[in-house]
Amino acid sequence: MTLRVALIGYGFMGAAHSVGWRQAPRVFDLADSVELAVIAGRNEEAVAKAAAQWGWAEHATDWREVIARDDIDLVDIVTPGDSHAEIAIAALEAGKHVLCEKPLANSVEEAEAMAAAAERAAEKGVRAMVGFTYRRVPAVSLLQDLISRGTIGEVRQVRAAYRQDWLVDPSVPLGWRLRREHAGSGALGDIGAHIVDLTQFVTGSPVTRVSGTVETIVAQRPVLGERSGFAGSSTGELGDVTVDDAAIFTGRLGNGALVSFEATRFATGRKNALTIEVSGSQGALAFDLERLNELRYCDRNAPGELQGFTTILVTEPEHPYVSAWWPPGHMLGYEHGFSHQVVDFVTAIAHGTELDPTFADGLAVQRVLAAVEASSANDSAWVAVEAAEPARV
Amino acid sequence: MTLRVALIGYGFMGAAHSVGWRQAPRVFDLADSVELAVIAGRNEEAVAKAAAQWGWAEHATDWREVIARDDIDLVDIVTPGDSHAEIAIAALEAGKHVLCEKPLANSVEEAEAMAAAAERAAEKGVRAMVGFTYRRVPAVSLLQDLISRGTIGEVRQVRAAYRQDWLVDPSVPLGWRLRREHAGSGALGDIGAHIVDLTQFVTGSPVTRVSGTVETIVAQRPVLGERSGFAGSSTGELGDVTVDDAAIFTGRLGNGALVSFEATRFATGRKNALTIEVSGSQGALAFDLERLNELRYCDRNAPGELQGFTTILVTEPEHPYVSAWWPPGHMLGYEHGFSHQVVDFVTAIAHGTELDPTFADGLAVQRVLAAVEASSANDSAWVAVEAAEPARV
Amino acid sequence: MTLRVALIGYGFMGAAHSVGWRQAPRVFDLADSVELAVIAGRNEEAVAKAAAQWGWAEHATDWREVIARDDIDLVDIVTPGDSHAEIAIAALEAGKHVLCEKPLANSVEEAEAMAAAAERAAEKGVRAMVGFTYRRVPAVSLLQDLISRGTIGEVRQVRAAYRQDWLVDPSVPLGWRLRREHAGSGALGDIGAHIVDLTQFVTGSPVTRVSGTVETIVAQRPVLGERSGFAGSSTGELGDVTVDDAAIFTGRLGNGALVSFEATRFATGRKNALTIEVSGSQGALAFDLERLNELRYCDRNAPGELQGFTTILVTEPEHPYVSAWWPPGHMLGYEHGFSHQVVDFVTAIAHGTELDPTFADGLAVQRVLAAVEASSANDSAWVAVEAAEPARV
Amino acid sequence: MTLRVALIGYGFMGAAHSVGWRQAPRVFDLADSVELAVIAGRNEEAVAKAAAQWGWAEHATDWREVIARDDIDLVDIVTPGDSHAEIAIAALEAGKHVLCEKPLANSVEEAEAMAAAAERAAEKGVRAMVGFTYRRVPAVSLLQDLISRGTIGEVRQVRAAYRQDWLVDPSVPLGWRLRREHAGSGALGDIGAHIVDLTQFVTGSPVTRVSGTVETIVAQRPVLGERSGFAGSSTGELGDVTVDDAAIFTGRLGNGALVSFEATRFATGRKNALTIEVSGSQGALAFDLERLNELRYCDRNAPGELQGFTTILVTEPEHPYVSAWWPPGHMLGYEHGFSHQVVDFVTAIAHGTELDPTFADGLAVQRVLAAVEASSANDSAWVAVEAAEPARV
Repeated sequence: MTLRVALIGYGFMGAAHSVGWRQAPRVFDLADSVELAVIAGRNEEAVAKAAAQWGWAEHATDWREVIARDDIDLVDIVTPGDSHAEIAIAALEAGKHVLCEKPLANSVEEAEAMAAAAERAAEKGVRAMVGFTYRRVPAVSLLQDLISRGTIGEVRQVRAAYRQDWLVDPSVPLGWRLRREHAGSGALGDIGAHIVDLTQFVTGSPVTRVSGTVETIVAQRPVLGERSGFAGSSTGELGDVTVDDAAIFTGRLGNGALVSFEATRFATGRKNALTIEVSGSQGALAFDLERLNELRYCDRNAPGELQGFTTILVTEPEHPYVSAWWPPGHMLGYEHGFSHQVVDFVTAIAHGTELDPTFADGLAVQRVLAAVEASSANDSAWVAVEAAEPARV
Repeated sequence: MTLRVALIGYGFMGAAHSVGWRQAPRVFDLADSVELAVIAGRNEEAVAKAAAQWGWAEHATDWREVIARDDIDLVDIVTPGDSHAEIAIAALEAGKHVLCEKPLANSVEEAEAMAAAAERAAEKGVRAMVGFTYRRVPAVSLLQDLISRGTIGEVRQVRAAYRQDWLVDPSVPLGWRLRREHAGSGALGDIGAHIVDLTQFVTGSPVTRVSGTVETIVAQRPVLGERSGFAGSSTGELGDVTVDDAAIFTGRLGNGALVSFEATRFATGRKNALTIEVSGSQGALAFDLERLNELRYCDRNAPGELQGFTTILVTEPEHPYVSAWWPPGHMLGYEHGFSHQVVDFVTAIAHGTELDPTFADGLAVQRVLAAVEASSANDSAWVAVEAAEPARV
Repeated sequence: MTLRVALIGYGFMGAAHSVGWRQAPRVFDLADSVELAVIAGRNEEAVAKAAAQWGWAEHATDWREVIARDDIDLVDIVTPGDSHAEIAIAALEAGKHVLCEKPLANSVEEAEAMAAAAERAAEKGVRAMVGFTYRRVPAVSLLQDLISRGTIGEVRQVRAAYRQDWLVDPSVPLGWRLRREHAGSGALGDIGAHIVDLTQFVTGSPVTRVSGTVETIVAQRPVLGERSGFAGSSTGELGDVTVDDAAIFTGRLGNGALVSFEATRFATGRKNALTIEVSGSQGALAFDLERLNELRYCDRNAPGELQGFTTILVTEPEHPYVSAWWPPGHMLGYEHGFSHQVVDFVTAIAHGTELDPTFADGLAVQRVLAAVEASSANDSAWVAVEAAEPARV
Repeated sequence: MTLRVALIGYGFMGAAHSVGWRQAPRVFDLADSVELAVIAGRNEEAVAKAAAQWGWAEHATDWREVIARDDIDLVDIVTPGDSHAEIAIAALEAGKHVLCEKPLANSVEEAEAMAAAAERAAEKGVRAMVGFTYRRVPAVSLLQDLISRGTIGEVRQVRAAYRQDWLVDPSVPLGWRLRREHAGSGALGDIGAHIVDLTQFVTGSPVTRVSGTVETIVAQRPVLGERSGFAGSSTGELGDVTVDDAAIFTGRLGNGALVSFEATRFATGRKNALTIEVSGSQGALAFDLERLNELRYCDRNAPGELQGFTTILVTEPEHPYVSAWWPPGHMLGYEHGFSHQVVDFVTAIAHGTELDPTFADGLAVQRVLAAVEASSANDSAWVAVEAAEPARV
């Protein structure tokens, strides 16, 4: 069978997803073949260019028309977060499989509706997945697998951070990512979401309670003439930053373990420093996205004189996803996770097998983020995260 | 002039301080000469052995008699924290300069009394210092110096952790360090104290508010037959651990910056991992005690294509304390900080110059730790740290 | 204009080149468009599968027929080294641009003939390039660029190594890479070639003389039933390894600098450890292929207290090739070099501009390797490398 | 019994040895006690100052008188290499135990005479040791011990380098270390000696043949007014550097393994970068002096997915020498090796047990260095190293 794919959106994430759809069928032996059928976006000129660039057969300017087409099997959503719910729910109701870029939504309410829609769709064999692609970096997949096999014993503590520095300069303008109405939140939702998801993924245990603080370090920034991204010419005026620059929070997992979380766009010199270390009763595992081909492992049961952290180059054939690529010692990069995501989604669709992360997983992340904001607003007192089951509508 | 020194206590810290007193006058050109006059401890056999081992001229079993002697100029206290206040105050009142190992005391009340005593003594030219020796690791001294010179601009965020793993094994017995009556607190007071002190030291800004959680991960451990340290034979019974195993807290500095703190004895594979990273508006600095001869520096004003973290080997003659030791590239170790502490204390005494850390600095740390415990007991809500001035008695 | 490409060969390198031809036009704005016209190989079933997998429009089993076609503009050769000369010369004489995977050939004689053919073809506007893709890892391109701009001053010494470990196990069978008649040489030609090329590339100075030793550490290995690669079932017999396992040699550059080279397949635990460090009068630069997104730079003119090696994450828009890919801090991998190679080759063809590495560069590497073998055979006495100009036929 | 020690010389090495003699009896439970009896040097004012600084009971200006004294048991020689032979032989003949700083001598002839003297003395129970203290860095001792226990199987290859950068600046003056008549050789004898010794030590196998090149990169430097060290005022004239700045050589061990060696004072940015990696049939071990508390170990027999280099923090009680110092995770430094040397020498004297490195070991290093120079002078052809037995006189 062939899955005909529609991609809604065409920015940075559109490029990354396009690479995934193009590469996966070449490198992996996919369960179903895929076809890059149509790419949709509001700006016709831009979307036509994206279609040509990435090899999408057609382009469209109205996502509703795309979803209405009978010849589309799968909708991949890479628009800004404020449109995810509407598109995803419509697509699921139209019987399309949906891959939705993270964050699932900008609010818990939207995420709940999406998870409910996914659950209803599942009854008809329609599948939904949220795009936390870092789960599919081979070193992260290995990390999760080792924990699930008991390699480090019982998880006792987790230390997770995602640190960038693109806001250190106060002249960085007030782009859409710094306005709550468009972005939902700041560092918390953009990069904090990743470490919450990874923590829940690798430990297999939900964050049940949080205490935290969100902070806007530079309160005003130059206003841009129009909605824009990182760049654009300034008007000379200053406007209010309405999202957080940094979020520091502590979480309690369902298994009782404590987690320290930090998400910040003010860590000078740190470009994309997602780090996570899991301390267990029998060992520890540590990962750093800036060295994404490496995983560090400490075995407490090794002879005392030989203990320490082993730097594993996760490029061996026995490592997840790796054998399809290159020989040992040949590095993978950022976009490989997008191919792995395609492989796993297509496999789950073809075979009806379990997939992750589900919309329920995406909702669970949103609930944690909402609880962090609630805690921050209440003097950082602990807040319970709503139970992870999606509300039935 | 010659300073005649009495050391009260003779355990691990007695050894480290003895090395400091022995080495400093050999390697550095001290302002005053020093004499290792007497070492005191309750167990005569043990203290006599320590005297012989480290070259103290005499030994004694009653610290009160030592303090009463006219021929002692300086008292160095390395007993457990529950006796610091009594000894230090008595010594100061007897007109002796006092060096007191950290933590200053097991409670804020004691620390306040000590700081007050130090203030009264100062009026008579008697000096008091608390032994946060990590301030005197050359890389840390350099870090502080660079920040104070404005090298990284305005401090925006700090990330500090001290992680060890000696409690991961649940069969580690219930030694005195795990009982509140002796140790005051657990990871918080023992190692959390260091990162609080270092943060205040390197940024030059006090922690004014905290929100945090302290946690006992393994609640019961094997009881030992008698008060003991890390080792000893078990009775087969289990007893309650009455201090924290881990503390995770967020602090607000006087300058507004947020700090994430973590102190834990459950970080599997981490032996002595004190790490601190300071993010500023113009750069960043990072230190790791397990690589104590290195400091990492990021300069935001370097050409973009060449930016990154520079690993500085802090063994050059222009680095603090280093020129007295070995040529470039020759490593220093843990105990060198104790020599540097002697150098700086003796210099301050001889010249009447400012010294650090004072008892007020030690008290400030205690107040932060107490505020963390108060916050933890109050659902992690933010707690103001008492103002840093010692209370006048 | 559209370049119609034929790929001759379809193994590991066929995959890597196919990815390059597929990705480059998507990610970069190429000067000419490219078309994956035909892939050729002797085994029809296998080559048909490769054509389908990588999207080559046609497949063929006779490279001669492919070269004879009028509708082919460019021939990309990824067969084993013993067939490079014949195919490349035929293609050049047929007026096709040629990209030839390294090593250029298995002997100096063949390489000379190829370089001569390339020179004759150049007069007719036909271009030839050899596939030393590591030149196009962004960190390596940056390294070269910084040296050429004088950033580290005059090059004084180079330390280069390429270390792998896939032959440590004596039960690894006697594949074609271990037989001189197929592979030409062992570690020397396979991986030593890379460090010779990189040294000449980044310093801009040829290796003019060498003294070295080549060594076969495990002299006999299990014979395979048929010509095979890394795997295959053994016959129980042992056969002679007729290539080197390791080569250690010293080179003299045209500018007088000394270089230490080491290429080995016996460096236990090292998977793909190509490392090169260039020491200059004003600074140094160091690269490690296992951390291919990083370049380390030491500036001798920085303030003494701040000197050290800076780890540059070569993922910024100002770094070579990077701006076409992802935002800062997003890692690139092994295969990206193959896209960059396509970009640069197509640009040179379209604009008639200089390209590198030329067949003359490939010949220069072969001459160095031949000189190493000659030196080794003559008790490691120094041997002059033949002048780099290709012999006119 | 008490060993009364005389130290001949008082420069940088005098300080390091003094620290060793002062610290060892405090930290370790020595087999014999030691007494810092006398320090000797030609300049009375300077040697008197050194005596006072380091606590030597007496000072003297004539080493012959010191050796003639009945109340001296052990002579420790830290003068420049050109005086080692005369002093050491005289001391041994006077029945004193001798510790002689490396290099044993400036020529093979002198070293042979010294080794012969040591052998004669040994018959009377008089012991001699050469000061290659890096053998006694705990991580190096562990490295050697692991190899000797077969942990990495059969040694196949060694990669050893010692790189510094203090001559990069051409204005560094022509000190005694740059003149053959005083220093014997340059980088080769000063730092190359260390990596030759360490290689022979950790592998337990002698270097039997060498092929190499020695090189003077900056041929002339500013002449100083008088014999001087690193500093001093220049006369404006240039004089010839008569020793090597760098030495690159390949060695063959007795067990057949190849070794690549590099010693240089021109590795910009490298301060004291002694690195050694030993590749074995079952694993590998790597050490870097700039991270002297760490040893990296790769176990080829670990599960494939978990293989890599483990960074062992060599500060655990089960590691060599460590238990006498501080708790786990507390770093040791450069001078600790000098204490360990005292411990081992005193133990060997007290118990009549084997010691290392002997004068024969020192001679073996000299012979390798001489062979390197001979090879370099003969177009880098291989030269056999003289057999390791000291010549009988």
